[in-house]
Amino acid sequence: MKAMVYYGENDIRFEEREKPDLQAPTDAIIRMVKTTICGTDLGIWKGKNPEIRRVAEEKTGSFNGRILGHEGVGIIEQVGSAVKNVKVGDKVIVSCVSRCGTCENCQKQLYAHCRNDGGWILGYMIDGTQAEYVRTPFADTSLYPLPAELNEDVAVLLSDALPTAHEIGVQYGNVQPGDTIAIVGAGPVGMGCLLTAQLYSPSQIIVVDMDENRLAMAKELGATHIINSAKEDPVARIMAITDERGVDCAMEAVGVEATWNVCQQVVKEGGHLANVGVHGKSVNFSLEKLWIKNLTITTGLVNANTTGMLLKTCCSGKLPIEKLATHHFTFDQLEKAYDVFKHAADEKAMKVIVDFA
Amino acid sequence: MKAMVYYGENDIRFEEREKPDLQAPTDAIIRMVKTTICGTDLGIWKGKNPEIRRVAEEKTGSFNGRILGHEGVGIIEQVGSAVKNVKVGDKVIVSCVSRCGTCENCQKQLYAHCRNDGGWILGYMIDGTQAEYVRTPFADTSLYPLPAELNEDVAVLLSDALPTAHEIGVQYGNVQPGDTIAIVGAGPVGMGCLLTAQLYSPSQIIVVDMDENRLAMAKELGATHIINSAKEDPVARIMAITDERGVDCAMEAVGVEATWNVCQQVVKEGGHLANVGVHGKSVNFSLEKLWIKNLTITTGLVNANTTGMLLKTCCSGKLPIEKLATHHFTFDQLEKAYDVFKHAADEKAMKVIVDFA
Repeated sequence: MKAMVYYGENDIRFEEREKPDLQAPTDAIIRMVKTTICGTDLGIWKGKNPEIRRVAEEKTGSFNGRILGHEGVGIIEQVGSAVKNVKVGDKVIVSCVSRCGTCENCQKQLYAHCRNDGGWILGYMIDGTQAEYVRTPFADTSLYPLPAELNEDVAVLLSDALPTAHEIGVQYGNVQPGDTIAIVGAGPVGMGCLLTAQLYSPSQIIVVDMDENRLAMAKELGATHIINSAKEDPVARIMAITDERGVDCAMEAVGVEATWNVCQQVVKEGGHLANVGVHGKSVNFSLEKLWIKNLTITTGLVNANTTGMLLKTCCSGKLPIEKLATHHFTFDQLEKAYDVFKHAADEKAMKVIVDFA
Repeated sequence: MKAMVYYGENDIRFEEREKPDLQAPTDAIIRMVKTTICGTDLGIWKGKNPEIRRVAEEKTGSFNGRILGHEGVGIIEQVGSAVKNVKVGDKVIVSCVSRCGTCENCQKQLYAHCRNDGGWILGYMIDGTQAEYVRTPFADTSLYPLPAELNEDVAVLLSDALPTAHEIGVQYGNVQPGDTIAIVGAGPVGMGCLLTAQLYSPSQIIVVDMDENRLAMAKELGATHIINSAKEDPVARIMAITDERGVDCAMEAVGVEATWNVCQQVVKEGGHLANVGVHGKSVNFSLEKLWIKNLTITTGLVNANTTGMLLKTCCSGKLPIEKLATHHFTFDQLEKAYDVFKHAADEKAMKVIVDFA
């Protein structure tokens, strides 16, 4: 089968690989129908995750590449003997988080930190979904049967982008009816925050980005205010919009210090700062100003504990996320899809959908 | 009357001042019976709060000193025409936080940020309790009648130290039965965290400090483990105690980067970091490691919304806080009390109680 394989910094190869086999009775083998590329995949490509090689070498003594990808929709081709909730032939969403469902962390819905080799493992610690076939551990708890009425492009967003935005941005950020919120970064996850925040009826949603095209899309998707931080000071503007009070909740959806800084300056007393971005460096935390402000700051990897709820919400038409699927490629064009996604803002791309023939 | 007055950095004077008068119908005038000194008072003395002079000059065009102190017990000598819950002759605890009870923030129990010139104002934005008499705004919501059975030394700790520890450390830190918690810093507020945490039955309480005397007191007051961070690496030791898992909750009770760093390294996935310390500088926040850990980090000034509950708990004997009242002075010895408290660890002092004759 063909697959996109990571070997090291700036070294990914679209090449022939062995088709996977069942390894545990709780596994499934999925024939992929759709996949996509995540910002995290670009990070791995750029060399942000040398632990992929390190851990493989520690465990097995060698590293012969890792198939990328932790998102997608596919059809179950084979299931292990212990699988009972899904069956061969089911069309399913593959969750980016695999969970055993039995460990201490899974029992408290902290699936991101499953202690039986689960959590975010697909396309990271084990081979992923940017391949014709993928082995998914813990099939019963990590696959979601796809209702016939759900658009398959939308379904791909339910693997990661939408639950991440909803859980780590909106739920951790405690968005409430009437709130004023700021979303800093209008990439796929920031847009997911924008859409899922509206399930909770905030009164003002301010979106900050440096790209006019993304800001226009944010406006179309429900932002009440947009701020181009390349052209004006987002902190001053947010304070002006909020009568110098600040926002109830700020969501950091980029993963760099500049956007973190905007967030920590605009949250009002008693408010929430939800960090959603994946950071490569530490940041400066202004505790000399913020110790007194009764803030709640959260971080996190998605638990995917709201995937089922979001799936129903998408089916009901309350989340117009199909607009985020801006570009389509066939699987044999995967390298081209990577090139477009790498320059997503310039290419006016949000999420690129990759269709297996 | 005599009072301890702040004039500027390293300039506090124990001197004669005018007795205060009622200024608003919601005010009371209190004849002080006991007061104490807070780490924050030392901070003001050291020059950490130049805004005291600045704000006074902005508002009135001049600054003629500020009486320090935001803690104490006294007897009501006079009340304004709108006061209905307390009366002349009542012995009351003066809360460090004054609250109007009517503004947007007070209506959501965010009393620390009362928008009608309340919050922490005593001994800061208005004259405080280190004087024979004090004017307390919002008497109905900011004074607590003292039950006859309550030790008056204990009562002084209910003005600030104990509610701060309980609300900003234990409640924000979400301490639950069975939890493993770390308290970094064993001053009066850290000790308050240690005592009030036990109301929620954690299974392990690790206390970190550099002073052997304080650590011995922590052990006596319920710590299951003590770590002298001057002698061993507290992070390595906490990880060893917790089977390399880390703690459910870490409380920062000092206000410097070194103790913040201990906390951010020892909180386990899904855990809480409650910052209680007052910081003068920003700190480094290791988001490159912590973005993925599903942490909740909180900051805050006490709301004093649990003062009444803690008062009842003290009366019931569940909080042996009288041990924290280590030193006693008469009011005319206030300068000496400051000198002792300034070198509290060396003097084996925890909280110094000042008795008006």
